[in-house]
Amino acid sequence: MKSVGVVVEYNPFHNGHLYHIEQTRKHTNADCIVAVMSGNFLQRGEPALLSKWYRTKMALQGGADIVIELPYAFATQKAEIFANGSISILDAIGCSEMCFGSEHGTIIDFNKTVSYMIENEETFNIKIKNTVKQGYSYPKAASLAYYELEGQESFLDLSRPNNILGYHYVKAIKDQQSSMKPTTIQRTGAGYHDVELPPENIASATSIRKALLEEEVSLETIKQFVPVTTSNELKKYLSEFQLLHSWEDYFSLLKYKLMTLTAKDLENLYEMEEGLENRLISHISNSHTFEEFMKKIKTKRYTWTRLQRACCHILTHTTKQQMSTVKDNPKATYLRLLGMTVTGQRYLKTVKKDLSLPLVANLSSYNDPLLELDKKAANTYSMIFPEPIRSKVLKLEYSTPPIRYNEENVN
Amino acid sequence: MKSVGVVVEYNPFHNGHLYHIEQTRKHTNADCIVAVMSGNFLQRGEPALLSKWYRTKMALQGGADIVIELPYAFATQKAEIFANGSISILDAIGCSEMCFGSEHGTIIDFNKTVSYMIENEETFNIKIKNTVKQGYSYPKAASLAYYELEGQESFLDLSRPNNILGYHYVKAIKDQQSSMKPTTIQRTGAGYHDVELPPENIASATSIRKALLEEEVSLETIKQFVPVTTSNELKKYLSEFQLLHSWEDYFSLLKYKLMTLTAKDLENLYEMEEGLENRLISHISNSHTFEEFMKKIKTKRYTWTRLQRACCHILTHTTKQQMSTVKDNPKATYLRLLGMTVTGQRYLKTVKKDLSLPLVANLSSYNDPLLELDKKAANTYSMIFPEPIRSKVLKLEYSTPPIRYNEENVN
Repeated sequence: MKSVGVVVEYNPFHNGHLYHIEQTRKHTNADCIVAVMSGNFLQRGEPALLSKWYRTKMALQGGADIVIELPYAFATQKAEIFANGSISILDAIGCSEMCFGSEHGTIIDFNKTVSYMIENEETFNIKIKNTVKQGYSYPKAASLAYYELEGQESFLDLSRPNNILGYHYVKAIKDQQSSMKPTTIQRTGAGYHDVELPPENIASATSIRKALLEEEVSLETIKQFVPVTTSNELKKYLSEFQLLHSWEDYFSLLKYKLMTLTAKDLENLYEMEEGLENRLISHISNSHTFEEFMKKIKTKRYTWTRLQRACCHILTHTTKQQMSTVKDNPKATYLRLLGMTVTGQRYLKTVKKDLSLPLVANLSSYNDPLLELDKKAANTYSMIFPEPIRSKVLKLEYSTPPIRYNEENVN
Repeated sequence: MKSVGVVVEYNPFHNGHLYHIEQTRKHTNADCIVAVMSGNFLQRGEPALLSKWYRTKMALQGGADIVIELPYAFATQKAEIFANGSISILDAIGCSEMCFGSEHGTIIDFNKTVSYMIENEETFNIKIKNTVKQGYSYPKAASLAYYELEGQESFLDLSRPNNILGYHYVKAIKDQQSSMKPTTIQRTGAGYHDVELPPENIASATSIRKALLEEEVSLETIKQFVPVTTSNELKKYLSEFQLLHSWEDYFSLLKYKLMTLTAKDLENLYEMEEGLENRLISHISNSHTFEEFMKKIKTKRYTWTRLQRACCHILTHTTKQQMSTVKDNPKATYLRLLGMTVTGQRYLKTVKKDLSLPLVANLSSYNDPLLELDKKAANTYSMIFPEPIRSKVLKLEYSTPPIRYNEENVN
């Protein structure tokens, strides 16, 4: 059986994701699609709209055969570490290919860029360092440095978010000496950063989230942009838990943390660099909402995403020490199975003996420093609910078996 | 002007407190009564029922002339440190006497006991150590050790809570070489630990709190046990903030903290000794209420109060390092003025130049490591309110000037 990997957040699963899975299957002739999916917190440093279990269901109903959780230690990181963690999982589960969506759409240029950048790494890093010194954020500095390099003209537009991720997937494959073959599919329709709903039937997850989190907008508004299965899962989640998760729901906890910890306490937390902790402390008491707080702490130096991730690590109390192994060696140490179709199950049977990492189906039966971070993330994620919902949600995290979905019985 | 000190919590101010102030004035011929009052969190490791401002009003209306806040670093401690902090404040503000309520009621026996204990300190400490080793809590061990000492028969019953506090006031006066004269008044009516409302018009603060925090009991039930001024302040607080504070209101925050910090993180917090942190972590996820949690973590070794204080320091994130100065030298470093009558103001004018500690009337104008703990306590105290009340309460802490009360205009 040929298995092909994809790296996803599905927050929520929409028509663009459906298209990506369909195209991946078509282009690669995959028998089994393995999706590595972020759990409770996402790369932009935000809580997921709804639980990993609901998003797993969406994924399986949308064409994925296996869903593996991308551990918190990778899911809430900059592209490089995010990509390395994802690739290490797809490699460990035996994918022969992985396929990512990109603005660029041609894999050869990714390969060329990676080779070129490895050759010019030193010059590139010096250029970045100098540009950061001028007060630019790291991503902006990297992008500027890249365009200053000679001979890169014909390659990639590394100012586009999915090209950046793709670049890091390809580089991670090379760095990890994986035999996986990377491929890419051109993203159609809405870009990552569009925040208004476009008229076609493909919209970015960002714009869908925005619509879902605005008070007066109902599920109706986004219906045309998501498969009916997504609409159904969103409806079920809302009726069971009365909300979709946003940073605003967690702001009280963040504020509480920031108003009881000293700068010295905060210094131990991940992403707390260059006195950022003082900036956060000085603006928290006068901020009534997360949005207001973010606007106050935003500077040219830090991207919105970087700051959200820092807040996310405060919220989950993730320390530098806990993240240090990941920074030194950004590879997963286990495969947490969230769900599978009948095909996925069949695939797992064939590779089970050859897996290079342990397959974790039950959270309480396995211990690992990175899994501790996932547990803390799950604990945090459930904290906004009143009792008895909170305890119920917490239990789900520890007791839910991998979701099984029989794709063959669907009409 | 003769000023006499009392050490109080007024949680809330009741008829027993009124009696204590009246008797203090009568017995000592005081012109000015100075009350050192705990702020947001109390010696039993609990949040105060209502804010320090409301409790200050109760105190001034009940006969106190000056109210000074006992800093968090002393207010939430065992008797010895609590007493030392209180005495250092009363001494600094120039009280020539201090008067405490006790079960025993005769000051000579307190003096005798303190002298006797100083002579026998070494034997006493060894006895305590051995008894703690047998699994007894520290207070129980101290009490047992005391009764094992020879020659103490005629002195004090140190199993009674107010005798214990009184003992430590007298000892602190001696240790700090204060010239203050201690006196005591026999407590009448309800003891500290009675939890049912007795038929007379004096009830313990514990039983009054219990009645106030039970859902179906109204202010009517406690009316006979408190001055009308207390009823009025409680009524005003309830109508402004919709609640009286109890541990249950803070349990979500405690649970969040305990479910995101590791044992190693918790180890840095004050009162976290002998692996207590592991015990707390192992019982938190299955506890739905604070009461349930406390019952699960309670052992013979730790008193309920000791455990509540540990939880309180987790809630406020008070570290061992932040408390270290107080443990080494348990004396206040500032006098935070919460309120005064016209008499109190007159007294302050006469002694202002001779005060041995700075008088702090405005929180934002003064910096001190102990004051930082008070700020964190105030931040924590406000966190249970939704916006915009939370921000309003927080502002009150920083902007409320000392309450002035003209006792001469009252009919």
